[in-house]
Amino acid sequence: MSNWTLCQHEGIDHLEKSYTFKKYSKSLCFLNAVAGLAESYVHHPRMVIEWGKVTVAWGTHESDEGSGVLVRDRHLAEETDKLFELLQAKQI
Amino acid sequence: MSNWTLCQHEGIDHLEKSYTFKKYSKSLCFLNAVAGLAESYVHHPRMVIEWGKVTVAWGTHESDEGSGVLVRDRHLAEETDKLFELLQAKQI
Repeated sequence: MSNWTLCQHEGIDHLEKSYTFKKYSKSLCFLNAVAGLAESYVHHPRMVIEWGKVTVAWGTHESDEGSGVLVRDRHLAEETDKLFELLQAKQI
Repeated sequence: MSNWTLCQHEGIDHLEKSYTFKKYSKSLCFLNAVAGLAESYVHHPRMVIEWGKVTVAWGTHESDEGSGVLVRDRHLAEETDKLFELLQAKQI
């Protein structure tokens, strides 16, 4: 797990990483793929899409297990990296 | 044009507005629709998607016409409102 940094959103710790893209269509595909991952886990990241990049932040606001960066958030950060590599390999 | 506020991203003025959704799938549909609008104008907003809401910010970084909130940004903010109403009406 590389290049994920710790940051705060609404006072809650998140793991955050930006992914860069040459084409907007490619960044949109990536965002949608991560959204699919999020739906399957019923746990949704904060994502920012702008020209050339998508920034993904995983954190838990409130749960029985606490808040901040939990095991599930670290796992989903790793899964997000895998999705990025998978989509890059496909040359979408 | 209501509820758009002036804010700054990377030192550039933007018009920004948040739209709320009960379902994540609906917020994702809206983001994709705005992305389609952006592609058709070859001008891309900053969008944040998180649980329950999408925040759209229109601004121009650098162009022959200047930077900040230009006529095109105001127009696209209006078009974004229309898209939201259109999708709400369709009960997606």
